[in-house]
Amino acid sequence: MFPEYDVIVVGAGHAGCEAAAAAATMGSSVLLITMNMHTIAQMSCNPAMGGVAKGQIVREIDALGGQSGIISDRTMIQFRMLNLSKGPAMWSPRCQSDRVLFAQEWRNTLEENPRVDFWQDTAKEIVLEDGKACGVVTSLGITIRSKSVVLTNGTFLNGLIHIGEKQFGGGRTGEKSATGLTEQLVGLGFESGRMKTGTPPRVDGRSLDYSKMEEQPGDEIPSKFSYTDTQPLAKQRSCWITYTNEEVHKVLRTGFEKSPMFSGRIKGIGPRYCPSVEDKINRFADKDRHQIFVEPEGWDTVEVYVNGFSTSLPEDVQYAAMRKIPGFENAKMFRPGYAIEYDYFPPTQLKSTLETHLVSNLFFAGQINGTTGYEEAACQGLMAGINAHQNVHQKEPFTLKRSEAYIGVLIDDLINKGTEEPYRMFTSRAEYRTLLRQDNADIRLTAKGHALGLASQERLEKVQEKEKQMAELSEKLSQHKYQPAEINPALERLDTSLIREKTSLYQLLKRPQITIAKILEAHPPIQELLEGYTADAILQAEIHLKYDSYIEKEMLLVEKMNKLEDLSIVENFNYDAVTSLSYEGREKLKRTRPTTIGQASRISGVSPSDISVLMLFIGR
Amino acid sequence: MFPEYDVIVVGAGHAGCEAAAAAATMGSSVLLITMNMHTIAQMSCNPAMGGVAKGQIVREIDALGGQSGIISDRTMIQFRMLNLSKGPAMWSPRCQSDRVLFAQEWRNTLEENPRVDFWQDTAKEIVLEDGKACGVVTSLGITIRSKSVVLTNGTFLNGLIHIGEKQFGGGRTGEKSATGLTEQLVGLGFESGRMKTGTPPRVDGRSLDYSKMEEQPGDEIPSKFSYTDTQPLAKQRSCWITYTNEEVHKVLRTGFEKSPMFSGRIKGIGPRYCPSVEDKINRFADKDRHQIFVEPEGWDTVEVYVNGFSTSLPEDVQYAAMRKIPGFENAKMFRPGYAIEYDYFPPTQLKSTLETHLVSNLFFAGQINGTTGYEEAACQGLMAGINAHQNVHQKEPFTLKRSEAYIGVLIDDLINKGTEEPYRMFTSRAEYRTLLRQDNADIRLTAKGHALGLASQERLEKVQEKEKQMAELSEKLSQHKYQPAEINPALERLDTSLIREKTSLYQLLKRPQITIAKILEAHPPIQELLEGYTADAILQAEIHLKYDSYIEKEMLLVEKMNKLEDLSIVENFNYDAVTSLSYEGREKLKRTRPTTIGQASRISGVSPSDISVLMLFIGR
Repeated sequence: MFPEYDVIVVGAGHAGCEAAAAAATMGSSVLLITMNMHTIAQMSCNPAMGGVAKGQIVREIDALGGQSGIISDRTMIQFRMLNLSKGPAMWSPRCQSDRVLFAQEWRNTLEENPRVDFWQDTAKEIVLEDGKACGVVTSLGITIRSKSVVLTNGTFLNGLIHIGEKQFGGGRTGEKSATGLTEQLVGLGFESGRMKTGTPPRVDGRSLDYSKMEEQPGDEIPSKFSYTDTQPLAKQRSCWITYTNEEVHKVLRTGFEKSPMFSGRIKGIGPRYCPSVEDKINRFADKDRHQIFVEPEGWDTVEVYVNGFSTSLPEDVQYAAMRKIPGFENAKMFRPGYAIEYDYFPPTQLKSTLETHLVSNLFFAGQINGTTGYEEAACQGLMAGINAHQNVHQKEPFTLKRSEAYIGVLIDDLINKGTEEPYRMFTSRAEYRTLLRQDNADIRLTAKGHALGLASQERLEKVQEKEKQMAELSEKLSQHKYQPAEINPALERLDTSLIREKTSLYQLLKRPQITIAKILEAHPPIQELLEGYTADAILQAEIHLKYDSYIEKEMLLVEKMNKLEDLSIVENFNYDAVTSLSYEGREKLKRTRPTTIGQASRISGVSPSDISVLMLFIGR
Repeated sequence: MFPEYDVIVVGAGHAGCEAAAAAATMGSSVLLITMNMHTIAQMSCNPAMGGVAKGQIVREIDALGGQSGIISDRTMIQFRMLNLSKGPAMWSPRCQSDRVLFAQEWRNTLEENPRVDFWQDTAKEIVLEDGKACGVVTSLGITIRSKSVVLTNGTFLNGLIHIGEKQFGGGRTGEKSATGLTEQLVGLGFESGRMKTGTPPRVDGRSLDYSKMEEQPGDEIPSKFSYTDTQPLAKQRSCWITYTNEEVHKVLRTGFEKSPMFSGRIKGIGPRYCPSVEDKINRFADKDRHQIFVEPEGWDTVEVYVNGFSTSLPEDVQYAAMRKIPGFENAKMFRPGYAIEYDYFPPTQLKSTLETHLVSNLFFAGQINGTTGYEEAACQGLMAGINAHQNVHQKEPFTLKRSEAYIGVLIDDLINKGTEEPYRMFTSRAEYRTLLRQDNADIRLTAKGHALGLASQERLEKVQEKEKQMAELSEKLSQHKYQPAEINPALERLDTSLIREKTSLYQLLKRPQITIAKILEAHPPIQELLEGYTADAILQAEIHLKYDSYIEKEMLLVEKMNKLEDLSIVENFNYDAVTSLSYEGREKLKRTRPTTIGQASRISGVSPSDISVLMLFIGR
C-alpha cells in the first residue's frame, strides 16, 4: 500500500510539522502520520508564539528555512517586541495567534509540499531491523517502511488527564491517547519517565467585563517573525490583564483536598515556570495576587484563554474561584482546565542530531524529550527532520553550537544534562546571548540553512544584501566626520557633551545618550546618509556599533571554547580503556558519547579532572 | 456552576447546531454540549449540502429561519441546480462545501447568538424527575439542569468502527464514542436498535490524474440556498466523474472474505441508497461499472472525497482496488474508508414534535432517529429546537403537514411508519410534490417561521413582496393581449401555431413550446412588461401559470386529506374502550398516539376498517 519513505514523522504538532516540512523541502519523501487530519498543528495550550528566548528560537527556525515564523506571521492577531527597554540581546518577539488559522496555514503549507504524504492513523510500534528503525506499525495493523522515523508524540503517549479526583485517558481533552510505543521502547532498553503539564479553563469572552481589566494592545508599529516578505499586521486585537486576589485563593484552597497535584495522584513533574495556579498560591503563600493574562483565541471567536490560571482542581472549584477574579464575575466556561501526565524519554539518550543512541535512524523531537513550549518543540522537529534527511542520504549530521543558536543551547543542554522537569528556554541558559539575538538569526544561520538545501537562494541573497549594507553603512558612519560647529548644536539638544575636534558619527553614536533615531531628530541632514539602507541593516549597524565591545568579548570566549569543541572524540571511543576516569564520569561518557571534549565537559557527572584525563589521552 | 437552561442540546452536528440556534433565536437559554469545541459542525461524510429532495429541505429550513441555507451559501465552492430538464417540482439545489469553512461558519453563527452557551464534555445520563427530562449528567460527573433536553448523538452512541477484520470504538475515525445514554434509555423502556453507515477513503488530490475523468463544473449562473441576501459564487471548483470497472470489482472481491458486512460482524442495517461499493458489486453483479464522484474538500486543500466508493473492506484491498479506477492509478490515501455501527431509537417512539412519548421534555433529532443525511438531520434539529422552546414556554407545538413541507413528510413517515434502515428523503416520498417545490419554500413556510419568532421581519416582508409581485405580474400577463399581426411573427420563430384572434400573453405562455425566456428572445418588447419584477417573482408567476392545473389538483387532494387531518383525537384517548378495533391496530395506535384521524390512517398496521371504526367513535 505504501512506498518505502525516506522519513516517517509520527505526530503533527509543532515538532512533527517542522520535521516533515524540513525533510521534504530538502528532498526526502515524507509520510506524516497523524491521529486526525483535522487537528494538524492544533495549538494545545495558549494561542501565542514567541516570547522571551522563545521568540529568538522562532527567528532561528525561520532563518534556517523552517516554517513556524512564516505561519505565525500569516496568522497572528497581535505582535509585541518584548523587553525593548533592555539591551538588544533581550529583545524578544511574541505574537497572539488565531488558533484556527494557525492550524489551517500549517496544513496548507504541508499540502503544498509535493514530498509530504499524509496518513491518518496511530503509530503503535517501530519496525526494527538490525537495531535500526525502518518503519512503523500502525493501530490499523499496517506496516509502513521507511529509512528513518521521527517521533513527536507530544502529550499523547499514555496520556492521562486529571480534573479534581477524576482521571481519564486522552492525549488532549476530547482526544484519544496513544499506547504501545512506550512499552516497545522500554522493552528495547530505553529509559522513560512521566511528566505533567496543564492548561487553564477556556471561557466565553462575551461573559467577561473588560472594563475591570488593563488593556494590552499590540505594538504601535508591529514587527514580525520571518525574515521573508510576510506582511506585518494592519490591525490587531488586544489582550487583557487582571489579577487573582485573596478571595480567589481562598476558594481555590477549598479544592486542595481533591487536588490530584497535592494528593500525589499525579506522579509526573510539571513545568516549573508555568505552574498551575494552585501551585503558585501554595508555593508563594505570601503573594496576595497573581497575574491573569486574558488572550483572545482568534479574530472572530469569542473563546478566550485564561493564561496564568492553569489548574487541575475540581471544575466547580475552578469555576467558583474564577468568578472572584475582577472582570470574571459572570464568566462562563467552555471547558475546565486540566492536568495531563504523559511519557517522555530522558533526552540524555540522544545524539546531538536528536537520533537515539540505542536505535539508529530513530529520532525524537518535542515533548517526548522532556521539553515544554511550542518553540522548543518546533526547533527540535526542524533539527530532527534535517538530520533524518541527512542520515538517509548519507550526508553530514547537522548540529548547531551553543555559540551559534539558542537551538544549539537547547539540544546541548538536553543531551548532556538531561532534564528532570519540562525544559523551557530562557535567555539565561545561553552563555553567549549577546551573540544570539533575534535581529541577527539570519546572519547567524541562513547560510547554513541554504547549504543544507533548506533555506532558499532568495533568503540567502537577502541576508547577504543585509550584511553588505550593514558593512557599508558602518564604514560610512566612521568616515563621516563632523566639525564641532556643525554638530554641537545637535549634541546640546541631546544633552550630551560637546566635541572640540573633528569626530566621526560612529564615535558619537557610541555614546549611550545618542541613538540613530535621536540624532536624526536633532540633526535631520543625517537622513541623507541613511538613504537607501533598509531598517534592518541600519538597526544591525547600530547594534554592532553600540555593543561591539560586548560582542567581541563573547567572540573571544567562543573562540576559547571552540578549541575544546574542535577536539573531537571518535564515536566508538573506548572509555573503559581510560582507567583513570572516575567511575561516574566513565558511565556518563559512555551513555552520552560526546563528539567533542567541549561537549564532554558539559555532561553532568563528568568532572574537570575527567576532562583533563581525556585531553591527555586524546592528545596522544 | 451552571444556571438552569431552557434547553440543553447534546451534540453539535447538523441537528444539534440547528436545534441550538432555533431555540436560542426564539428566546430560550441554550447550552450546547459537544465532545470537542474544535469539531462543531464537522461534516462527517461528503462535503456537500442539498441534492434531490434534500436541497428542498435546506430551502425549507432556510424559509423557516434556520441556518443551514445561509451557512451553505457562505461556504460553498460549487453550486448546481439538479434536474433542471424536469418539471420544477424536481429542481433540486446542491452545493459542494469547503469542509473547514462550513464548520467555522457554524461555530461563528452559534457564538454570535447571545443565548447559546457551550460546554465541552459528553452527556452520559439524562436527569429525570417525575418522568420528565430536566437536565443531563456529563462524563465529568457534572449535573446540569434544564427544562428540556434535545439529543442529537449522530453515530456516537456506542459507535463501533469496522475496517476489514479490525474493529474499534469511535464516534468517527480518530474520535471517541459515547456510552451510557443508550443503556439508561433502554432501562427506562425505550426500544433501541443498531444501524450502520459508511464512508469512503479520503485521497490526496495531487496524486490523481484528472485528464482521465469527466469534469463536472458548477452552473454557469450559480444560484444559492437562502432566500436572504447571501451572495452567489463568483468562482467555483469543479468535481470530477470516473467509473469503476471489472478490474476494480475483481480486486474488491478478493477482500469479501474479510468483509465485516458479508461475514455478519456488522449487525446494523446500512443506508439502501448509499451502499458501500462492495454491496453494489455484490447486489448488482451484472453492472460492469459504478460511478465515482470525485469531490474537492475545499477551496485550498488537496484532500478529495471519493463519493461512491464507501467501503469497509481491508484497507489494502481498498487501496489496490482504488488504483484500478481511471485517474486513480497513482492515488495516495489519507485514510481508509470504514463502516460504523451505532445505536438508534426507532422513531415510532416520538410525537410529531420529536418529543419522546416516554419521557416528557426529551427530544430526539437526527441519526438517533434512524435517518441518514445532513439535511434530514438538520431539519429534525430545527423542529426539535423549535418544539423544545415551545414546550418550555407553554406554547403550542409546532408541526408541519405532509402537504406543507418535506420536513412534514419526513417526520410523519418516521413517527408513523418507523424505519428499519437509515431513512433518506426522496421526492417520491411526498404525495404533494408539485406543491413542495424548492422555489416556493418561503411562500409555504416563512410566515409560520415568523409567527414562531424564528424568521425575521425582514424575511417575512421579502416573501410578502414576492407574492405581491407574482400576483401583479400574473394579472398583467392575463391583461396583456396581442393582435395576431403583432405576435405571430414571434410565434412563427418559436415554431408554435399562430393565433387568429386576440390572445393574452398568459394564454400563450401556457403552451409547452413557450417560456418567458423564449418569448422574450422572439419578441423583445415584452421586456417592458417584466421591468421592476424580481427574477424570483417572474419564475414564480411562470411556474404557477404553467402548472396551475397540477397545482390545483393537488390542492384538492390536500383539502380532502385535511378533512381527516382536522378530525383530532384527544391525547389520552382510550383505545381499549373501542372493542371493534383490530388487535394490531389498537396496539399501534396506543404506541403512536396519533393526534388526528389522518395521522392514524398512515400508521403501519392500522387498517382502513380500524379508521372507519375510529371515525364512527369520534363522530359521536
